[in-house]
Amino acid sequence: MAGAAVTGYRSAGAVNPVTVNSFAGEIGALRPAVRDLVRRRMDVLAPAYRLMYAEPLDVSRAAGAYLFDRDGRRYLDLYNNVPGIGHSHPKVAEAVATALTEANPHTRYLSEAVVDYAERLLETFAVEARPPDRVQFCCTGTEANDLAVRIARAAAGRVGVIVTQHAYHGSGGLAVEASPSVAPGEDWVFAVPAPLDGDPAAFAASVSAAAAELDARGFGCAALLLDSAFTSDGVVTDPIGLLGPAYAAARAAGGLVIADEVQPGFGRLGDGWWGHARHGVVPDLITLGKPMGNGLPIAAVVSRSEIFAAYEPAYFNTFAGTPVTVAAARTVLDVIIADGLIEHARSVGARLLGGLQGLFGPAAVRGAGLYAAVDIHDPAGRPDPAATAGLIAALRRRQILVSATGPGGSTLKIRPPLVVTEADIDHFLEVLDDELPRLVG
Amino acid sequence: MAGAAVTGYRSAGAVNPVTVNSFAGEIGALRPAVRDLVRRRMDVLAPAYRLMYAEPLDVSRAAGAYLFDRDGRRYLDLYNNVPGIGHSHPKVAEAVATALTEANPHTRYLSEAVVDYAERLLETFAVEARPPDRVQFCCTGTEANDLAVRIARAAAGRVGVIVTQHAYHGSGGLAVEASPSVAPGEDWVFAVPAPLDGDPAAFAASVSAAAAELDARGFGCAALLLDSAFTSDGVVTDPIGLLGPAYAAARAAGGLVIADEVQPGFGRLGDGWWGHARHGVVPDLITLGKPMGNGLPIAAVVSRSEIFAAYEPAYFNTFAGTPVTVAAARTVLDVIIADGLIEHARSVGARLLGGLQGLFGPAAVRGAGLYAAVDIHDPAGRPDPAATAGLIAALRRRQILVSATGPGGSTLKIRPPLVVTEADIDHFLEVLDDELPRLVG
Ligand SMILES: Cc1ncc(COP(=O)(O)O)c(C=O)c1O
Ligand SMILES: Cc1ncc(COP(=O)(O)O)c(C=O)c1O
Repeated sequence: MAGAAVTGYRSAGAVNPVTVNSFAGEIGALRPAVRDLVRRRMDVLAPAYRLMYAEPLDVSRAAGAYLFDRDGRRYLDLYNNVPGIGHSHPKVAEAVATALTEANPHTRYLSEAVVDYAERLLETFAVEARPPDRVQFCCTGTEANDLAVRIARAAAGRVGVIVTQHAYHGSGGLAVEASPSVAPGEDWVFAVPAPLDGDPAAFAASVSAAAAELDARGFGCAALLLDSAFTSDGVVTDPIGLLGPAYAAARAAGGLVIADEVQPGFGRLGDGWWGHARHGVVPDLITLGKPMGNGLPIAAVVSRSEIFAAYEPAYFNTFAGTPVTVAAARTVLDVIIADGLIEHARSVGARLLGGLQGLFGPAAVRGAGLYAAVDIHDPAGRPDPAATAGLIAALRRRQILVSATGPGGSTLKIRPPLVVTEADIDHFLEVLDDELPRLVG
Repeated sequence: MAGAAVTGYRSAGAVNPVTVNSFAGEIGALRPAVRDLVRRRMDVLAPAYRLMYAEPLDVSRAAGAYLFDRDGRRYLDLYNNVPGIGHSHPKVAEAVATALTEANPHTRYLSEAVVDYAERLLETFAVEARPPDRVQFCCTGTEANDLAVRIARAAAGRVGVIVTQHAYHGSGGLAVEASPSVAPGEDWVFAVPAPLDGDPAAFAASVSAAAAELDARGFGCAALLLDSAFTSDGVVTDPIGLLGPAYAAARAAGGLVIADEVQPGFGRLGDGWWGHARHGVVPDLITLGKPMGNGLPIAAVVSRSEIFAAYEPAYFNTFAGTPVTVAAARTVLDVIIADGLIEHARSVGARLLGGLQGLFGPAAVRGAGLYAAVDIHDPAGRPDPAATAGLIAALRRRQILVSATGPGGSTLKIRPPLVVTEADIDHFLEVLDDELPRLVG
């Protein structure tokens, strides 16, 4: 274990899951309207832009758990976790429009709505043992992770960061440096294998070994930065208690713990608000994003005041924590509570996970609530990215949207808006049952 | 000059302009309603948050160039450049609300509105000699500058970045490392004095000296990163042609040039869309933000495809370039054109600058269009931050909002929404004329 860990970051060599389910640029095969738009897009957007699916989807309307293309065809969206309370939620549209007609000052002016939201957000952590008491707003998950690492460094008086080998924490700043799935590693980043085997002690041992290596490199361990559900390492949600020993190992080495809740947060796992809390652990810093504003750019670092106080540079983010995006975020909290979406995620998620286990076998399925991962194997039991891609394309033809994740891109990733219904899930399971014999095993 | 430049970044020791006009925490002196809200805010927001003014402003409504406090008192806003087309613009509210009820997919799906906007945005550069042809959306100016530096590094095959001594380019990532006004410097950043003397050759010489020093440090010069109006160095807009020799010096050293248009862009200077174009120069990368979406979080890196292509890592920003924020940005372009706001900024700005010159003397005033800076001196001609603060507070009492900038915080910063009227400016000049005798000289 320690041996594997000490190979560290540069050896990760992940297949970037981003590129697994991408449109490959075969323009000729597309329908004319789509082809023209793809061409125009390629002529003006930077070359790093990617489209999903061999036939990219031109989205003209969206509602609840459905996307509609230009021709009005409806797709069941089992992939987009940003619109957690449902695409184009009317209450979000209303709250945002109202804020836009009232006022949208930045945070150097007073705004009661922003204070109010921060109070409400902190309440979601109140059940925890040593709850965070302060919020710093950002616009993106990337910004939140960048800032959290800076704060952890200041508080720890160290530099090194431990992540998992296929982690994704953002597209820029220190967040991309700490994302082995995207960037070539810097020496202060050390990547350990995600605990896909579900062994808390072995995971903790590799964190300790990583911290020792960071000490040896002269950086020390400033932070253990973990997605609380390891969503880009293939999704690991169990056993409950998985994170405790690793958190302790990082702290024993003088580091802080940052819980990246950008994917698992806001009730996604159907068991309280936050992925780390499910494991009964208390991080030092927590980063939020994606579903926070149902698609409006809002993110946050949440922590305790004494930890924030360690970071001295002024932090001012022009657009963050302003009434317009906060109006969306406030609506998200209200709707999750009023509509019981966490309980809904738990019960509909149980149906989803149970159904997947029935189809693929219990060993192939991981997840909790409405976050599910299914390892796709070839008949010899090896990871099968081609079959995974085939399955995604077949579902796309049947108007169901999922995608892939994991080191080799051979893990189905399923994370619908929380408002997906039992009937939607049953339909998905039936279509899977129908398509599977043609594709795998 | 070279001597001063070679002192480099760590010696900058700027008074952070962010803290010049801050509420100092004297809660007791505030009116009860404001006091309670400030208390609640301090209890939940991170300690890095700052409020402006000795008596913070509780904004309940905003329209055009006016802010209204909780008691309905109206303030003339001569400071906020984010709502360029005016606070709470009804067309922005309408466009955003419509997009929110239709669809807001991320950039791995097709959306004609996003392609359309990118086309329109690129048209604003069409008058330039070698216009950029591709857009990469971000959510904040920080993200845009972070990415632009990464791209420049990849394209140049070098690491070092040259900035000015009191520059501000962002709150995180490589942008904050390259912001001497906030962060302690890293060795790959070298800061040169801003050309406050308006001498293009001397400025170019200090860029050459900085590049040589970065070569000597082993980093080389990847980029010269300049705010096209040097807005946090005290505002330098003239003479026309100021930037050309410095751009050439950076290129002679193997570096690219990044024009930070977050402050001067979108017509602010009353002379075309972009601050760099006013000087007849062509940057390699251009970063946009602040007024781009009139307050919605949207920013961009604009460049040529071959430069973008040098940067290999995948770039995906969950919230960037989505229909909702693009709807706001599209409205901004449309309104600037339909309402002739660039010409308006030029004519109203000329009145503002002329009036300020009459009051403070031509030597104390810099700026172009609706971006004005006034150096405030004591009777002996020394920079006077106390008088500057006094003037800002006096204007605040007279319900006019401005703030301070510059190394010592002794420069008034005036940059109203572009829709400010001649009558507003005349009122401001009259109030200034009235208050000045009590405060300075
Ligand atoms: C776990 C995790 N952290 C951080 C991020 C970055 O978020 P953003 O795209 O808003 O910068 C992502 C985005 O996919 C993510 O999945
Ligand atoms: C010149 C300049 N560049 C970049 C930024 C960073 O923009 P943001 O706050 O959106 O990250 C600012 C913000 O004040 C700025 O003034």
